[in-house]
Amino acid sequence: MKTSRFSALLLCVCICLQFTAKAQQNLGNQTLPVVSPVIKGHQVTIRIKAPGAKEVLVKGDWLAQGKSAALTKGADGVWQYTSDNIPSDLYMYQLTVDGVTMVDPANVYVLRDVGAQFSVFYIDGDRAEGYKVQNVPHGTVEYPWYPSPGLNAERRMAVYTPAGYADSRQRYPVLYLLHGMGGDETAWLTLGRAAEILDNLIAAGKAKPMIVVMPNGNAAKKAAPGFTPDNLEPIDFALPHTMDGVFEASFSDIQKYVQAHYRTINDQAHRAIAGLSMGGFHSLYISANNPGTFDYIGLFSPAILPRTDTAGDIYGHLNQKLLTLQKSGFKNYWIGIGKDDFLYKEVSDYRNRLDSLHIKYTYFESDRWHMWSNWRIYLTRFAPLLFQ
Amino acid sequence: MKTSRFSALLLCVCICLQFTAKAQQNLGNQTLPVVSPVIKGHQVTIRIKAPGAKEVLVKGDWLAQGKSAALTKGADGVWQYTSDNIPSDLYMYQLTVDGVTMVDPANVYVLRDVGAQFSVFYIDGDRAEGYKVQNVPHGTVEYPWYPSPGLNAERRMAVYTPAGYADSRQRYPVLYLLHGMGGDETAWLTLGRAAEILDNLIAAGKAKPMIVVMPNGNAAKKAAPGFTPDNLEPIDFALPHTMDGVFEASFSDIQKYVQAHYRTINDQAHRAIAGLSMGGFHSLYISANNPGTFDYIGLFSPAILPRTDTAGDIYGHLNQKLLTLQKSGFKNYWIGIGKDDFLYKEVSDYRNRLDSLHIKYTYFESDRWHMWSNWRIYLTRFAPLLFQ
Repeated sequence: MKTSRFSALLLCVCICLQFTAKAQQNLGNQTLPVVSPVIKGHQVTIRIKAPGAKEVLVKGDWLAQGKSAALTKGADGVWQYTSDNIPSDLYMYQLTVDGVTMVDPANVYVLRDVGAQFSVFYIDGDRAEGYKVQNVPHGTVEYPWYPSPGLNAERRMAVYTPAGYADSRQRYPVLYLLHGMGGDETAWLTLGRAAEILDNLIAAGKAKPMIVVMPNGNAAKKAAPGFTPDNLEPIDFALPHTMDGVFEASFSDIQKYVQAHYRTINDQAHRAIAGLSMGGFHSLYISANNPGTFDYIGLFSPAILPRTDTAGDIYGHLNQKLLTLQKSGFKNYWIGIGKDDFLYKEVSDYRNRLDSLHIKYTYFESDRWHMWSNWRIYLTRFAPLLFQ
Repeated sequence: MKTSRFSALLLCVCICLQFTAKAQQNLGNQTLPVVSPVIKGHQVTIRIKAPGAKEVLVKGDWLAQGKSAALTKGADGVWQYTSDNIPSDLYMYQLTVDGVTMVDPANVYVLRDVGAQFSVFYIDGDRAEGYKVQNVPHGTVEYPWYPSPGLNAERRMAVYTPAGYADSRQRYPVLYLLHGMGGDETAWLTLGRAAEILDNLIAAGKAKPMIVVMPNGNAAKKAAPGFTPDNLEPIDFALPHTMDGVFEASFSDIQKYVQAHYRTINDQAHRAIAGLSMGGFHSLYISANNPGTFDYIGLFSPAILPRTDTAGDIYGHLNQKLLTLQKSGFKNYWIGIGKDDFLYKEVSDYRNRLDSLHIKYTYFESDRWHMWSNWRIYLTRFAPLLFQ
């Protein structure tokens, strides 16, 4: 009696699991009709079952900028696309079925970039191995809230402490790593693979163990979308006070909190700052306004654009500030940009400025455009230069 | 010359932003054709532009279990559905367009439940206010890796430390909070809103400040999907060693790490354990095998199922263990289940067992089924009982 009751129950549970398949609470995501993406060597095949559709397109960052590719319909109503051989990387893509743009319904792995979700996959190889979670010691990622008197708010940041931090009394150097416009304190960890890149470089002995601080560079926001009292509000690409000096002027609040709450080494030789796009612009001006603070400065596709300074003299007297910065004796001023980046000319102009001031910098020019693929490459090249 | 160059550039940037609109790297997510979901009072309207579609359905946890509702096509090719008045809560849903199940393309907010993504929205009101990020002091969430000799692995856990933790030397009580089958160390934070529930209850003076430890209950896994060296592999609902005593037997590894790395108060009066579904089953046996360890035990829709014990005597001699547990003098043994939960009968049987042993417990019966809506309710009721 008891046995049959249990058997019946187990059957019931099995059936239930069969139907829920993929979800805790039985919202009905049935067995997926196709497997997608499928990776074979350096090719990806993307599939979607959509028998009634008239057109299915894929847009992904292995394609030329802004281009889509068409999927082909099979007799079974499954649309399919196979890429050419593409280099090892983490790739993002979306599908458009009869005008409806969506993530790949068969791929549970998505990453948010600003206000849109993207499906992701890896093409294996050296580059992807650097971004993947490996069997190496892992650092800890945490999301503390810190007081910012300068922005009159409690704000959220992300902090990576390297493997071994929790079990030592050692002090560590610190890299401040800033996101771009529309981004937030999670961007370098999700799209940027910062924790995995650092874990892997440190485990391979290629980078020094370091603390990485990823603040939120949107002065008008306290935290990433979904983590502020705005909760599930629409996400703005361009917020107020995004590049007007206010964030740069309040940067000392971040540094003060970090130095009080983490075991940092508090001198110029053990501090670095880098950022992508808007974060590169922020890094430029934070370093220029704080000579003697950072030995390493990284500008990744920096958005060196004319902006109105509402915070005092953050953006003024740049040449003079850069000369003072040079006198403070930094070790590496690193600039990276893609050949097809829409900011290429501005970065070129900025290099001319540095040249005219006889300020030395390291310059790395990659292929392609304003994209995460490049920023992961830049971080992978920049981090090993630090604190050596 | 310079001005016109800058003007042209700004125009170019504006155009670029217009087209990228929602993404850092210009993958081409254009302005969305509709706004969805739209919340008005206690009703949600869900919309999708799909002019070529023949049928659009929505499945969401405000509907009866397993049921879908049809969207209606408008003249503009926009399909629309408006719910009845539904209670305040965090809701999950998916759309199915001509057989293709997807998240709502217009809603950037998604949460993964096991192996599927779901779009989410709030219906405002008391319940949702408890789950939302509010203007209150926030605790810190972190993801340390800990050594588990019992499982022969470095494993990842999530830890919530309450607001003020980083700025005091105070010691705190600790709640171990366990996820269900198919879940992982992120589930209570994403779907379960554990950090927000605790932040809000603590800020309101309704719960004591406490540390909440959310380990990964899948003995065969080191971490959540995407955070293990498996990286972007398919996600299994039922893993090996999921409910075979191995996780329960190795629980002391978690406790040991937490007590060594966080300022916990290390006595029975300041320890609680609770879990949902499989995590309720784990909590039952971890508490039963460790009398004198926890003053508070919470079984949320516990999956009290017959399972084979491969770790020794974890599942045996239960009555005897429960009587010993009772003698150890716990303060609250709390059981919650939904009226329509498929585990209702098993929980009822377990209550009979406790009754027959004259073991007192608190019982809370909610409406509805095996779902996150209930587990958030249970945590909101359970946390205020702790450490008082």
